Amino acid sequence: MSVENTPQGTVAAGFEPVREEFAAVAAEEGNDYAAQLVAYLAGERVVDLWVGPEVRGDSLIGVFSATKGGAHLVVALLVQDGVLDLDQRVSHYWPEFGAEGKQDITLRELLAHRAGVVGVDSGLPLDELADDRIIAERIAPQRPYWRPGTAFGYHALVIGALTGEVVRRVTGQTLQEQFEARVRAPYDLDFHLGLPEEHEPRFLTTLPMRPTPEQQAELDAAATGPESLSGIAMNRNYPNAPELPELPNFRVVREKGPASVGGVASARGLAGMYAAAISEVDGRPPLLKPDTAAAFVQVHSVGYDLVSRQHKVFGLGFAAIGDTYPILSQAAFGHGGAAGSQAFADPRTGLAYGFNRRRFAFPGGPAPENERLVKAVHAAVG
Amino acid sequence: MSVENTPQGTVAAGFEPVREEFAAVAAEEGNDYAAQLVAYLAGERVVDLWVGPEVRGDSLIGVFSATKGGAHLVVALLVQDGVLDLDQRVSHYWPEFGAEGKQDITLRELLAHRAGVVGVDSGLPLDELADDRIIAERIAPQRPYWRPGTAFGYHALVIGALTGEVVRRVTGQTLQEQFEARVRAPYDLDFHLGLPEEHEPRFLTTLPMRPTPEQQAELDAAATGPESLSGIAMNRNYPNAPELPELPNFRVVREKGPASVGGVASARGLAGMYAAAISEVDGRPPLLKPDTAAAFVQVHSVGYDLVSRQHKVFGLGFAAIGDTYPILSQAAFGHGGAAGSQAFADPRTGLAYGFNRRRFAFPGGPAPENERLVKAVHAAVG
Amino acid sequence: MSVENTPQGTVAAGFEPVREEFAAVAAEEGNDYAAQLVAYLAGERVVDLWVGPEVRGDSLIGVFSATKGGAHLVVALLVQDGVLDLDQRVSHYWPEFGAEGKQDITLRELLAHRAGVVGVDSGLPLDELADDRIIAERIAPQRPYWRPGTAFGYHALVIGALTGEVVRRVTGQTLQEQFEARVRAPYDLDFHLGLPEEHEPRFLTTLPMRPTPEQQAELDAAATGPESLSGIAMNRNYPNAPELPELPNFRVVREKGPASVGGVASARGLAGMYAAAISEVDGRPPLLKPDTAAAFVQVHSVGYDLVSRQHKVFGLGFAAIGDTYPILSQAAFGHGGAAGSQAFADPRTGLAYGFNRRRFAFPGGPAPENERLVKAVHAAVG
Repeated sequence: MSVENTPQGTVAAGFEPVREEFAAVAAEEGNDYAAQLVAYLAGERVVDLWVGPEVRGDSLIGVFSATKGGAHLVVALLVQDGVLDLDQRVSHYWPEFGAEGKQDITLRELLAHRAGVVGVDSGLPLDELADDRIIAERIAPQRPYWRPGTAFGYHALVIGALTGEVVRRVTGQTLQEQFEARVRAPYDLDFHLGLPEEHEPRFLTTLPMRPTPEQQAELDAAATGPESLSGIAMNRNYPNAPELPELPNFRVVREKGPASVGGVASARGLAGMYAAAISEVDGRPPLLKPDTAAAFVQVHSVGYDLVSRQHKVFGLGFAAIGDTYPILSQAAFGHGGAAGSQAFADPRTGLAYGFNRRRFAFPGGPAPENERLVKAVHAAVG
Repeated sequence: MSVENTPQGTVAAGFEPVREEFAAVAAEEGNDYAAQLVAYLAGERVVDLWVGPEVRGDSLIGVFSATKGGAHLVVALLVQDGVLDLDQRVSHYWPEFGAEGKQDITLRELLAHRAGVVGVDSGLPLDELADDRIIAERIAPQRPYWRPGTAFGYHALVIGALTGEVVRRVTGQTLQEQFEARVRAPYDLDFHLGLPEEHEPRFLTTLPMRPTPEQQAELDAAATGPESLSGIAMNRNYPNAPELPELPNFRVVREKGPASVGGVASARGLAGMYAAAISEVDGRPPLLKPDTAAAFVQVHSVGYDLVSRQHKVFGLGFAAIGDTYPILSQAAFGHGGAAGSQAFADPRTGLAYGFNRRRFAFPGGPAPENERLVKAVHAAVG
Repeated sequence: MSVENTPQGTVAAGFEPVREEFAAVAAEEGNDYAAQLVAYLAGERVVDLWVGPEVRGDSLIGVFSATKGGAHLVVALLVQDGVLDLDQRVSHYWPEFGAEGKQDITLRELLAHRAGVVGVDSGLPLDELADDRIIAERIAPQRPYWRPGTAFGYHALVIGALTGEVVRRVTGQTLQEQFEARVRAPYDLDFHLGLPEEHEPRFLTTLPMRPTPEQQAELDAAATGPESLSGIAMNRNYPNAPELPELPNFRVVREKGPASVGGVASARGLAGMYAAAISEVDGRPPLLKPDTAAAFVQVHSVGYDLVSRQHKVFGLGFAAIGDTYPILSQAAFGHGGAAGSQAFADPRTGLAYGFNRRRFAFPGGPAPENERLVKAVHAAVG
């Protein structure tokens, strides 16, 4: 095992098995494995590890859909403040959204991936895909791809633009501005929805998946066309759209930080945000009251996701992490990302977890090694 | 390879690989494989192939549930005309249907296989099963087998009688008469809901499935009783009911052309109808406006189908073909049939597809070879 | 084959193959297999068998969730009487239940495992878990774990306490008292929701599962944490809660007979109750009118059960037995139990079935051998 392949960083007493498990994962993954793993317990950082060439503890990586966790923490705060009402119609806040049979869709349904507008018929060029306000404008007149109320599907690239437009209409500020003011800056978190130029030197480009021939065959068998619902949701229906893994590698995406997939963070930033959400951190009270967290983790969509074509369980804006990792509590909420990131809080134990990896993991989505790492961290929490 | 086993007919330039794929399928299926494959692009026939003993390009074959595509094209036209309203209660058009808790079921729910009346407790004799008006009368007083609104299941043998009764109450004409006047006759399509005596010589009887022992074991393991929900939906709860593959082999079924399963067509007829639905054909504008097509392909039912006991995705009256063949666009709509037929239009590419086979394919429903053939045709469309 | 391993008891003419199949099961299961199998046809007992050490035909065994069948027969009778209305809100009968977003949940939704309150955040000590009235009190203020209307999950340990509290509020009697007066006593059934001291000598303790190493690995892979939704539903979130198989082995549970899992019965009692539900027995008319039975077997919940994490199909308070054993009719209703019990009626054939086993079967729930035994009994019914 080379030095580069040995996890660096620190763990608190009792969390040594987490370091061992992370080392075992790295050894199996091979010499160019690059990842970060951080955990907080009751607001204290108890795991702070990283491994692999070029990676450091403060490296910034594109977190793809883990971005949605940051975006919807903002929405949860606004609901907690009474500024937004989950059962209000989206078109009340944002009249243009009411077109084509969407007039009665509530904020609750939108957050539960039930609205049916996962993209637009003609796709979006990169500069539009990077700009939540334009995404929202383009989606507003779109007919839902399924009948609202009858199904759900992952609004992979657009959910944050839609909920963000609601935030903007109500607060006068973008979701990104709210995130900066209420979440990122107070804790100096390395979780950016819009990465300032000064932090660019710490950014590591995302690397594409490197499937084995068997894995490639599996991917080919499950391939969907650019005009399929999955294709539209991934914007593959736009001619020569960039491949998903490339997104954070464009400066325009990092700069604007679209709230669905454009966030850039370290695992410290991811875990730190979830710690702040549920625990006292730096002398500040938890951002979320227990009732607010419970309302957002409450399951709202269960079954076959028309976009991912897989079984999914969603709360409001967050994934039902307790269904993904049933060793955790049902109260766990968070969001993973396409390259392999995973991040969540479990209010029952006070655990906050953040994981990043640089190279897309097979088969896409939160990397499989999270299962082992989550178990190890949870066991150490005891 | 015998002559009989070599596809006959023509393909337009660029569609040669489709002929090759069809030939490969025929070679694998064996000497008595009998099938037809037709495709249109932008209203022009680009594939016109057939293979096997007795089969010609103008042979007529029982298309089973592909019939539903014809039936619900009529319903779509009436919705487009403003004659029918998808959100109106069925009992508004047809008061007797409102019995036993069905009073609030809408036309939309009926078309989405959500009404819960997939058959009747006592089953139907053949002469009643061939007559949509009698089916409708018998179903009207039936209690739904599931709670409307909570589930869905394939109304295999009756959906066309139920939607047809709505058509009849509103227009004064049967669905079959509307189909003849508005769809079949204007294009001289060989797709008949009620086969005139004069075309009988071109009809080929449907042949039963010939499973291998392994396939038979699989069928046995999945077998359902005659009084199960699947049994009721397939009318196996009627004593000595004819086996499903026999249905089109009865003249009474061909003559009356019940709108769920009684259609008789060539692949030319199937593909020709879908071409007319979305493209200019013979100087006539497309039958469906894009908005109408989009409304009918919009997904309305997703998940476990209580009747087929399989995962299904339905639009309104049509299957969500884009979920079946995700290489196509989400806008693709159509309907396959039990013996192996498949037929659909994909408005995004202008493709219309029709496939027939004479012998029931394992395991039932659209034949597995459609997957290969659809891929080949789609690739040629580019 | 030892004598103990040979089924004892009687079968009516024509049911000999059932004895043979039961013997085959016993031979495969091994020398300590202990089980009871009883069937009625049109109100007459046609199968009355038992096998294994210590077991007799009148032995009493903890039937776990098969208890729910007895409980909800009472609810069905009260609906039939017009005392309860399925579409009435639970909070109408029981105002305290209306807390935390549960005010609009109907009795129908509650019976369909849709209410979302499968347990309480802090768990319940054994003495509270044995007492339906306390369970109801503790659940009333609980926030649903999923959004009512969007999902369902098995209310394993509490459904009977919740429906029971509705019964108590409306009738002034506990569900157990109603069961005794209306169901058990008139037929002298050995199916007790609250086991009188005098019957204790006939009670056999439930024995824990004895998985093979392969089975244990499978169980471990599917393990869920105590604070997961499954953990909460099984009350594993209470510190040092007794293991599920131990429940009926506590006298407090047998004494109080909580309506979800606390019943004690012989297979004669189980089958006898379902016979009385649908057939004339002892000169009394069937307890349920056909319409009532049909209303309760009507499917209300289909798909992924958030608690069992498996595909499930529920009617109202009963399982859709016809989906479990599709050889039966869709009208079959009943309920199995965790140790392996299964019990149901099939109104289409007049069959009533009861099965008990003493040792938990892998993987939990109605024992796999029921599939074979149900087929044998159904075949004999013809």
